[in-house]
Amino acid sequence: MKHYMSIKDIKNIQQAVVECQKIKLDCSGQREIGKQKTLGLIFMNPSLRTKISTTQAAYNLGMDIIPIDFNTGAWGLEFQDGIVMDGSSTEHVREAAAVIGEYCDVIAIRSFAKLEDKEADAKEEIFEAFKKYSGKPVINLESATKHPLQMLTDLLTIEELKTKAKPKVVLTWAPHEKALPHAVANSFIEGIKGMDYDFIITHPEGYELDSSIVGDIPVIHDQDKAIKDADFVYVKNWSSFSDYGKVLNKDKNWTVTADKMKQAPKAKVMHCLPVRRNLVLSDDVLESSQSVVIQQAKNRLYAAQYVLKTILESET
Amino acid sequence: MKHYMSIKDIKNIQQAVVECQKIKLDCSGQREIGKQKTLGLIFMNPSLRTKISTTQAAYNLGMDIIPIDFNTGAWGLEFQDGIVMDGSSTEHVREAAAVIGEYCDVIAIRSFAKLEDKEADAKEEIFEAFKKYSGKPVINLESATKHPLQMLTDLLTIEELKTKAKPKVVLTWAPHEKALPHAVANSFIEGIKGMDYDFIITHPEGYELDSSIVGDIPVIHDQDKAIKDADFVYVKNWSSFSDYGKVLNKDKNWTVTADKMKQAPKAKVMHCLPVRRNLVLSDDVLESSQSVVIQQAKNRLYAAQYVLKTILESET
Amino acid sequence: MKHYMSIKDIKNIQQAVVECQKIKLDCSGQREIGKQKTLGLIFMNPSLRTKISTTQAAYNLGMDIIPIDFNTGAWGLEFQDGIVMDGSSTEHVREAAAVIGEYCDVIAIRSFAKLEDKEADAKEEIFEAFKKYSGKPVINLESATKHPLQMLTDLLTIEELKTKAKPKVVLTWAPHEKALPHAVANSFIEGIKGMDYDFIITHPEGYELDSSIVGDIPVIHDQDKAIKDADFVYVKNWSSFSDYGKVLNKDKNWTVTADKMKQAPKAKVMHCLPVRRNLVLSDDVLESSQSVVIQQAKNRLYAAQYVLKTILESET
Repeated sequence: MKHYMSIKDIKNIQQAVVECQKIKLDCSGQREIGKQKTLGLIFMNPSLRTKISTTQAAYNLGMDIIPIDFNTGAWGLEFQDGIVMDGSSTEHVREAAAVIGEYCDVIAIRSFAKLEDKEADAKEEIFEAFKKYSGKPVINLESATKHPLQMLTDLLTIEELKTKAKPKVVLTWAPHEKALPHAVANSFIEGIKGMDYDFIITHPEGYELDSSIVGDIPVIHDQDKAIKDADFVYVKNWSSFSDYGKVLNKDKNWTVTADKMKQAPKAKVMHCLPVRRNLVLSDDVLESSQSVVIQQAKNRLYAAQYVLKTILESET
Repeated sequence: MKHYMSIKDIKNIQQAVVECQKIKLDCSGQREIGKQKTLGLIFMNPSLRTKISTTQAAYNLGMDIIPIDFNTGAWGLEFQDGIVMDGSSTEHVREAAAVIGEYCDVIAIRSFAKLEDKEADAKEEIFEAFKKYSGKPVINLESATKHPLQMLTDLLTIEELKTKAKPKVVLTWAPHEKALPHAVANSFIEGIKGMDYDFIITHPEGYELDSSIVGDIPVIHDQDKAIKDADFVYVKNWSSFSDYGKVLNKDKNWTVTADKMKQAPKAKVMHCLPVRRNLVLSDDVLESSQSVVIQQAKNRLYAAQYVLKTILESET
Repeated sequence: MKHYMSIKDIKNIQQAVVECQKIKLDCSGQREIGKQKTLGLIFMNPSLRTKISTTQAAYNLGMDIIPIDFNTGAWGLEFQDGIVMDGSSTEHVREAAAVIGEYCDVIAIRSFAKLEDKEADAKEEIFEAFKKYSGKPVINLESATKHPLQMLTDLLTIEELKTKAKPKVVLTWAPHEKALPHAVANSFIEGIKGMDYDFIITHPEGYELDSSIVGDIPVIHDQDKAIKDADFVYVKNWSSFSDYGKVLNKDKNWTVTADKMKQAPKAKVMHCLPVRRNLVLSDDVLESSQSVVIQQAKNRLYAAQYVLKTILESET
């Protein structure tokens, strides 16, 4: 694996999940693999799970970590080519990425969708620039359109909890105050498509996701029908994709509650966190034995360690 | 020791001081104790000594450190139960603490008193939430009402400097521009009560501390009389407790000066730092041989290392 | 070496460059030298290269690192002596430096010129305070008037790239939107003066640097003539020194372009970075084989590791 930008960078997704499971059995015995290797950690946006799990994974592999904060600690970045840099940006990404590439063996980056301009977001500017100018492997810690470490985590969680060969998996939209990106939903769909599951997506009208990602996965607007007899209910808000970045609907009938989950009494409820309680998911679901969100969050470690390890081993 | 929230979590305070002294003799030989153990460090407020000493103590024990910054780096926390999270807070402490508990073996937290609502501060919301939802030991790096690592440091400092079996120890209020919390004074009193010292408190009227903590310790309003022939003068500002969080008095006659210290020529002057010069303590005291504030600040390391070590050893 | 504040702290600069070259051949084999030694890292201003290279150098030497952020994480510093601290500063540098000195074996500091008051900048207040009150070696990560790690890097870069015994080296001013400090130019001049090079400085009128540093180095106002047949062209903006901190000129005829570099076709172009593209240096120079700015940036590591190693070995 050179970069880890999307699920497509994993050749065999089912094998990858098996490797994650092996790491989970003994994650602390790998401190020689990354010895004297340096991980550059770039967060353009807030993070709890991603920062902790990636840091812990790097420690477990014996790596050194260099955090780089372009928001407060380092120089403001310019991305546009050919520009006369007489404005507020102090350093062009061509130099910044090249310099970081001289020091770091792997570069992990989080940079969310701005949700203002679909084409601009789709360009994944900072990731493409670092791939091009750093000369080093780049790991996606959530980009504008993908969150592939979350997806690998989600598959690991489903695989270790499923009680039948072909579980019914539902991805359901839920309401939120703010406009959220599509990255988690996109990557979840891409991941599930690689598995032999019974998969369905449900959301209100107007919330259709990128059709090139959804493909022929069934989509219905009846959440109750979608959830019925599910084995896994993955809850997530996203903003409109067609009316890009807009919040069209805050209908609390879409909040996933314990009452709603009665239709799928054996289902496990998943969410990538952070979750807005009583808006996306109700307290009574999160406090119930159906919720596996904390176990899921812990699995971020094994996904991150698998990806880092695979990249480090590819480099040698 | 499960948590370290207050002095009451130490069974034998005198034995704890002896253990701190042992660590001081060889603090760097313990790098195996915390190997592959992770310390989560959460600062909701500024810190110099606490951050440095806790970090160094963790390094001395071979621990990995994960800093978590809820103010700038991670998601804004919600504490209220049952709330519909449609405001500015992005993550409930129930999830945040549970997730951090999955990754960290010990969680150390600083969260000062807000000094707006006595009952709210007394609840120690963030600490109680992390104790409840993280499932991991929590260390108090200064809460609204307690600063037990400072207290252990203070006792270590007094024990290594005292020249008589039962020294006279004075806690004196001093003026300050801003409203400061009661945590340091509270913990100092709780700590001194466990020792066989001759202890007296002095402050202006209106600055009475929590009577449930002061108990039957003598309190006088005559600073000169209190300081006379003291062996240790502990200087500290705090805001009013009865008129909660108010600054009632900025009387510079309470500033501890060299002239004032002539009444106690053998006394050592202590302060937890940071100190406002020429307001709380005068330059001439801080530059004199009576001041032990730097030695005291260094002792924070041994107190932190003792507490971390004791918790790690209790866990196994 | 006690402190590393300027080139004058290196006894034999040519020998120092040779030592940097040796470290470059095997920088990762020195993890025992700094074991259980702590580096305090204080950045009062932004940094990319300096933070990464100093961090990596400390890791390569096996040191522990404690970052101390006085801007957001720690208490605001007071520098004035004798002041009554009833304003916004919370801690005097006398205590802060002394406490940090108790915990750190080496203290590295960045604090730029404010460019408001020449005498105030010349005092290098924070560095002098840390030297005086910490009792520990202080490394200059760019002060108001010096950037000696950059200088050592620059010499290493020239020595490894020069193709004749006595290369022609040009320091040329280039335009910039903002007022920049003189530290890089000052240290470059001081460093080059220690080598047997053919050295010339060029800048517009009004941009004369400190004459006590420039001494008898030739200075001309004709950039083309200066660059002609050069072996190394070091490009850097600085603000006026006589009309202190003012931007007198933004003349883009001084921008170093590929066209201009035709006069020195074998020359290597250097810059300390970050660089404003198409203002200081044009895209076509930075993308050409004449540019060595990335190699130069990587050399920061070996300079930092040499200085840290030399200080650690002097301490024992």
